[in-house]
Amino acid sequence: MNSKGVIRLLGFVVGFEGMFFLLPALVGLIYKEYFGAGIYVAAGIVCLLLSLIITRFVVKRDAISKGFYGKEGFVATALSWIVMSLIGAVPFRITGDIPNYLDAVFETVSGFTTTGASIMNDVESMMHCNLFFRSFTHWLGGMGVLVFILAIMPIAGGSPLSLMKAESPGPTVSKLVPKAQKTAIILYGLYIALTIAEFLLIVFDPSITVFQSICHTLGTAGTGGFGVLNDSVASFSDYVKIVTTVFMMLFGLNFSFYYLLLMKRFREALHLEEIRWYLGIYSGAVILMIASLAFSGFGVCKNLIAVFFSCASLMTTTGYTVADFGEWPVFTHVIFFTLMFVGGCAGSTGGGFKVARIMLMIKQIGRDVRKQIHPNRITSIKIDGKAVSEEVLASTNRLFITYVFILVVSAMIIALDGFDFTTTFAAVMSTYNNIGVGLGDICVGDSFSMFSASSKVVMIFDMLFGRLEIIPMLLLISPSTWRK
Amino acid sequence: MNSKGVIRLLGFVVGFEGMFFLLPALVGLIYKEYFGAGIYVAAGIVCLLLSLIITRFVVKRDAISKGFYGKEGFVATALSWIVMSLIGAVPFRITGDIPNYLDAVFETVSGFTTTGASIMNDVESMMHCNLFFRSFTHWLGGMGVLVFILAIMPIAGGSPLSLMKAESPGPTVSKLVPKAQKTAIILYGLYIALTIAEFLLIVFDPSITVFQSICHTLGTAGTGGFGVLNDSVASFSDYVKIVTTVFMMLFGLNFSFYYLLLMKRFREALHLEEIRWYLGIYSGAVILMIASLAFSGFGVCKNLIAVFFSCASLMTTTGYTVADFGEWPVFTHVIFFTLMFVGGCAGSTGGGFKVARIMLMIKQIGRDVRKQIHPNRITSIKIDGKAVSEEVLASTNRLFITYVFILVVSAMIIALDGFDFTTTFAAVMSTYNNIGVGLGDICVGDSFSMFSASSKVVMIFDMLFGRLEIIPMLLLISPSTWRK
Repeated sequence: MNSKGVIRLLGFVVGFEGMFFLLPALVGLIYKEYFGAGIYVAAGIVCLLLSLIITRFVVKRDAISKGFYGKEGFVATALSWIVMSLIGAVPFRITGDIPNYLDAVFETVSGFTTTGASIMNDVESMMHCNLFFRSFTHWLGGMGVLVFILAIMPIAGGSPLSLMKAESPGPTVSKLVPKAQKTAIILYGLYIALTIAEFLLIVFDPSITVFQSICHTLGTAGTGGFGVLNDSVASFSDYVKIVTTVFMMLFGLNFSFYYLLLMKRFREALHLEEIRWYLGIYSGAVILMIASLAFSGFGVCKNLIAVFFSCASLMTTTGYTVADFGEWPVFTHVIFFTLMFVGGCAGSTGGGFKVARIMLMIKQIGRDVRKQIHPNRITSIKIDGKAVSEEVLASTNRLFITYVFILVVSAMIIALDGFDFTTTFAAVMSTYNNIGVGLGDICVGDSFSMFSASSKVVMIFDMLFGRLEIIPMLLLISPSTWRK
Repeated sequence: MNSKGVIRLLGFVVGFEGMFFLLPALVGLIYKEYFGAGIYVAAGIVCLLLSLIITRFVVKRDAISKGFYGKEGFVATALSWIVMSLIGAVPFRITGDIPNYLDAVFETVSGFTTTGASIMNDVESMMHCNLFFRSFTHWLGGMGVLVFILAIMPIAGGSPLSLMKAESPGPTVSKLVPKAQKTAIILYGLYIALTIAEFLLIVFDPSITVFQSICHTLGTAGTGGFGVLNDSVASFSDYVKIVTTVFMMLFGLNFSFYYLLLMKRFREALHLEEIRWYLGIYSGAVILMIASLAFSGFGVCKNLIAVFFSCASLMTTTGYTVADFGEWPVFTHVIFFTLMFVGGCAGSTGGGFKVARIMLMIKQIGRDVRKQIHPNRITSIKIDGKAVSEEVLASTNRLFITYVFILVVSAMIIALDGFDFTTTFAAVMSTYNNIGVGLGDICVGDSFSMFSASSKVVMIFDMLFGRLEIIPMLLLISPSTWRK
C-alpha cells in the first residue's frame, strides 16, 4: 500500500474543500449571516493551510505518480469521501444549526453521497449559508469530487483512471476520450451546462425565489434531494415540478448520451440500449402507478403530476417529494422500492444499482434458459451490439450479491431500533440507494432524526457503500488491505 | 423436445399417485370415513387406469430411454409436479373439505412443495383421510417424488440423472454412488429410517395421539409444516417440541452426512463444511434472538424452547409454530426473514436458497476483495478442500439473481391485494422458500385464504419455483423450449 500517495491525495481533497467553503461564506455575507460566514471562512483557511502543509512538507510530489494503482485508487477514494464528510460537518455543528456532531456527519454524508436523507425536522430554520452548502455537496457528490479535482489538475500522475473507476458509477468506466483528465473536463462541462439550463428555466417562476432556485437546481443536478422548504417541492408551482421532473430524468441519463449528441453522433446516441431500458422502466412504472391509483379510487388527474414526479424522483434517486405517497396503495410502494433499487443509468449522477447492471442481469437470465435448451450453443451477451466480457457479467453478479448481503446486515442492525418492518426496510433502501425518502414512520416531512446513534452510523456507511458502489469501502475496511 | 418421453413419464407419475391414494383410503376406513375412503379408492383406480393406458397404449416403452436429456428431464419434472398437484387436489374438493378447487390446488402444491401454507382456517374440521394425505404429500415432496419412483423402477433408461438433477436441491447433485437408482434407494432408506425414529420417539407422549404422531412426523420429515391442530404444535408437550426441534434440524442436514456415517467415514462426515455453516448460522440466530428478547423485556426462560424451535422451524423451512412471534421485536423478524431465505442444506428436504449456496456467495465476496488487493493472484474457492468450478459459482450467482427477480415480481402482484408491506413480503418469502408461516396479517392460526385468486395463483407458482429451484419451471414456461 502506497500510504504516502493516499495521504498526498487526501491533502489535495482537504484543500479543495477549503476552497468550496468560500462559496457558503459568500452566501452568508449576502444574507448578512456574519457569524456563519465567518465560520466558513475560518474553516476554509484552516483546510487550505492543512492542505499546504501536507502536500508541500509531509509527502513529496512523486508520491502519487509512482506506485499508485487500483488498490490505492479505491482506498484513497473511500478515505477522501469520509474525510470530506467529517470536515464538511464541522460548520453545521459550530454554527449550531445541527447541534450534534454525529447528526452533522450524517447530513454531510447524505449530501455528498446525493442521498438527501435529512436529520433536520425544520430545515427552514437553517441559515442560508448552511442550506446552500448542503445543496452544494449534492452537486459536487453527484458527478464526483475526485473527478472534479481531476478536471482541474493532473493530480494522479500516471494512473488517474483508478480514481475515476472508484468514483464513477456503473459496470464499466465511461471514458469518453482516451485521456482521463479530458473526460473529466467534458463531463463537468456538460454537467455545468445542464445545471445552468435548469436554473434559468425555473428562476423566473413566481413560486420560487432565486436562492431556492439555486439550491433546488443543485439538488436536482446531483440527484440529491435536500429541500430548502419543509414540504420539499410540494409548494412550488406545477411548472417548476414539471421542469424538475424532466431534469431529474436528464441527470439520471448516462452522460455518454450528451457527449454523443455533442459529437453529432445522433444515431448512436438514440440507439443506446441503456437509455431505452431506462425510459422503458420509467414509463412502465408510471403506467402501473396510474392504474393502481385509478383502481383504488384515488383521483388520477389530480395526482398525475405527482405520479410522474415521484417515479422520476425515486428512480433517479433524487428523493424530492410532492405528495405523501405513504397513503397510496401498497402496490405503489412495491413499485417504488423496485425503482429505488434500479436507480439511474451508469455514468449518470443517479444512485441505485444502475439500469446497465439490471440489463446485464436480465439478459443473463434469458441466456441461462436458452442454454438449458441448447447446451452446446455458445452465446455472448451484447449491449449496443458489442459483446460484454464474461468477467464484467460475473463481477456484476457478485456485486449484486454483496449488495444484498450488506442490505440484510444493515436491516438487522437498524431493526434493533424497533420501528416496524416497512420503516426499517425503507430506511435501508433509501440510504443505501442514495435516495433519501422514507416510508412508514418516516413519511414526507419527517426526518431520520428519530433513529438511534448506532442506526445512523450504519446508514452513514450504507450511503457511502451505495455511492461508491461497495468495492472501495469494502477494500478500506478489509484487514488484508492493510497487511504488509 | 421428446414429448413422448415426457408423456410416458407423466403416465408413471399418475400411476404412482393412484397407489399413494390408497393410503388415505386406508386411514378413512380405520376412522369409518367411508365417503372419504371411497373417493380416495375411486381416484386411485382412475389414476391407475389412466397410467396403464398412457404407458401401455399411447406411448411406447423406448420413449424415455431414447433422446431424453437435460431439457426433457427439467420439463418432465416441472410438469410432473403440476400434474400431481392438480390430481391430488381432486379428493379435497370432492370430499367437500375444501369446497373451492383453486384452494384445493393451493393446498396440494403447498403439501408437495413442503411449504405448509394452508388455506384452511379450521384444520381440525377436516376428515382424517384428508389430513393424512396432506401430511403424506409433505413426506413425498420432501425427498422428491421422481426420486421415489427412480428408487423403485429404472424408469428413465439411460439418463435418470437429469430427473434427479431437476428435483434434488442444491448447487450440485449429491450423487452418493455412481448409479442414480442406487443413490435414490440409499436416500429413501435413510429418509424412512429417520422418519420411523422420530415417530417412535414421540408416539408414547401423552400429549399427542398416534394419528397426530404420524402426521406430525411426516410433516417434520418433509420439512413441510402442515399441522393437524389449529394451533400447529403449541399444545404438544415440551418433550415433543424438543424432539421435533432436533429432528427438523436433522432433516435439514445434507443427507451425504448420514451416508458418510453409514460408511463409517466419521472424519469426513464431521468435517463437512456446509454442516458447520448450517449449525453456525442456526446458533448465531438463536443467540441473537435470545439477546433481542431479553433486551425487549420478553421473558427469556419461558420463551427458550420457542426460540430454539422457531429458528429451527424457519431455517429448515418446516414452518411449525409454537408461539405467536408476530408480537416479538422487529429485530427478530429480520432474523426470521434471513433464516427463511438461507434455508436448509443442499441435499436435504429443506427449502430456501440452501446453505451451500450462501457459503459459495460469501466466499466469493471475500475473494473479490482479495482480488482487488492482489490482482494477479489466481485463487479458487474451496469447499471441503476441493476447488469449486467457476461455472458452478457463476450459475449460483445467476440463480440468486433470478431468485430475487421472481421475488420482486411476485411481491408486486400480491401487493395488489392491498395488505400491508410486511404481510405481502412475508407471504412471498414464505411460499417461495417453502416455509408456510406468515407475518403481519397472517399471524399464527390465520391462513392464506384471505388472499385473492390471482395472488393464490402467483403463490402456487412461487412454491413450485422454490421447490424445483427455478430452472425447471423457467424452462417449462419459456416459449423457446417449445419452439421446433
